[in-house]
Amino acid sequence: MEKLSRFGVSMENELLGLFDAYIKEKNYKNRSEAIRDLIRHSFVKEEWRNNERVAGALLLVYDHHMRELVDKLLDIQHDFQALIVSVQHIHLDHSHCLEIIVVKGRAGDIRKLHDRLQALKGVKHAALSMTTTGKKIG
Amino acid sequence: MEKLSRFGVSMENELLGLFDAYIKEKNYKNRSEAIRDLIRHSFVKEEWRNNERVAGALLLVYDHHMRELVDKLLDIQHDFQALIVSVQHIHLDHSHCLEIIVVKGRAGDIRKLHDRLQALKGVKHAALSMTTTGKKIG
Amino acid sequence: MEKLSRFGVSMENELLGLFDAYIKEKNYKNRSEAIRDLIRHSFVKEEWRNNERVAGALLLVYDHHMRELVDKLLDIQHDFQALIVSVQHIHLDHSHCLEIIVVKGRAGDIRKLHDRLQALKGVKHAALSMTTTGKKIG
Amino acid sequence: MEKLSRFGVSMENELLGLFDAYIKEKNYKNRSEAIRDLIRHSFVKEEWRNNERVAGALLLVYDHHMRELVDKLLDIQHDFQALIVSVQHIHLDHSHCLEIIVVKGRAGDIRKLHDRLQALKGVKHAALSMTTTGKKIG
Repeated sequence: MEKLSRFGVSMENELLGLFDAYIKEKNYKNRSEAIRDLIRHSFVKEEWRNNERVAGALLLVYDHHMRELVDKLLDIQHDFQALIVSVQHIHLDHSHCLEIIVVKGRAGDIRKLHDRLQALKGVKHAALSMTTTGKKIG
Repeated sequence: MEKLSRFGVSMENELLGLFDAYIKEKNYKNRSEAIRDLIRHSFVKEEWRNNERVAGALLLVYDHHMRELVDKLLDIQHDFQALIVSVQHIHLDHSHCLEIIVVKGRAGDIRKLHDRLQALKGVKHAALSMTTTGKKIG
Repeated sequence: MEKLSRFGVSMENELLGLFDAYIKEKNYKNRSEAIRDLIRHSFVKEEWRNNERVAGALLLVYDHHMRELVDKLLDIQHDFQALIVSVQHIHLDHSHCLEIIVVKGRAGDIRKLHDRLQALKGVKHAALSMTTTGKKIG
Repeated sequence: MEKLSRFGVSMENELLGLFDAYIKEKNYKNRSEAIRDLIRHSFVKEEWRNNERVAGALLLVYDHHMRELVDKLLDIQHDFQALIVSVQHIHLDHSHCLEIIVVKGRAGDIRKLHDRLQALKGVKHAALSMTTTGKKIG
């Protein structure tokens, strides 16, 4: 169990009133939890900017009827095998697939994998979702 | 097989030179594929802004030692069951989990699910990755 | 002078250590100021998403040699006169101008003005910078 | 006058239909202009990511009643004098000011100036708007 510290924060009454409304709307249990979240979010951005070891997911939407696309997707994924934790596949409709590739590694390497997959003909959208390994954000 | 159209694009020589360098760096096979990608990306942004039916993924990093967190995560997910396509779970280290929840539905509802999960104590980061069902982006 | 409230925040020691490093790097005087900033930033995003009355700036980079461009820029700005507070002009080099249009009004109207200006031939980049009137963010 | 090239782009009919609707909604005169804009926008992001020489603006919303704030704002701006092209000041209401600082220089240095100003007590929001000197985006 991690040890907790407690410290005081001062805030204008007006700002505090707005913050309490925000907390309620976003379903936070208390101010501390909302503040910790704001802090951790800013850390995740820095981890990705500083090319640290991060976790994330690549989302690909593609048309599996496109000739040779599936083979190419597999080839590239094998070239970046060390980054890839797992792959999940959803059939969106008759022709569209959604593939979610969970990744862990240097932010810069993950971006390269994203670029390679995005460039393939038949890949209609490639989104890179950035999160953290959790180690460096307390 | 979808029918193709072909049209001409005019561009200053200097911009075209820069674009060709970009295409090479990003591994595109040709200018058409790169241009189609830029276009489709701008559509995905609009789909999410206009609260259309979209696909996406929620990435949660959490500490599974946090008391009752796993129960609460399941309760909320069942409340939003109609949005959730599948869930995948990765053990990041001794205490951290990465959960990837694939979602399909109205952009606004997906945001609400994201907010509810993010607000839980023990959830260290909640990222919302936005992509498309592929239907409306050609 | 606004009245201040003071409340306690609890945080894991590890997260607090990282936060203190962040505060130092970003030059904040104390934790309260950094926390207030994180809170206010999240409010500004919501103001823009909810089409509230906001302030901002449009940055245009354009080539003033482009025929009739300057006339068109002025015409459009007059159509949206109610939004525009002031305009500032910087000569970047022999051909490039940077124009900063300070705006105040509904977020949606400001986006429309941005789209109209961006679409003009000769406008090389149109950036929309989002801030606040300060009224609703405490 | 810059020399123009012309090349062909192939696109699925469905995507082209959607693109033409987008062009109309965004007020572009023709497809070429919309495509050039999408290309240039992706370049501006890369310039900022690669710490190149860029142009931009810092928007500050602050309460000028805050003791010594105006002095501190000036001191910091003088420390970063080489980056600052001009400053414009808008009175938003009785207590709030909007200051627009036009900047030119390395992306990393501009971020540092932003961080310094943002950290001051009384500065309620500091936005960094990223554009380009126009030189490297054709």
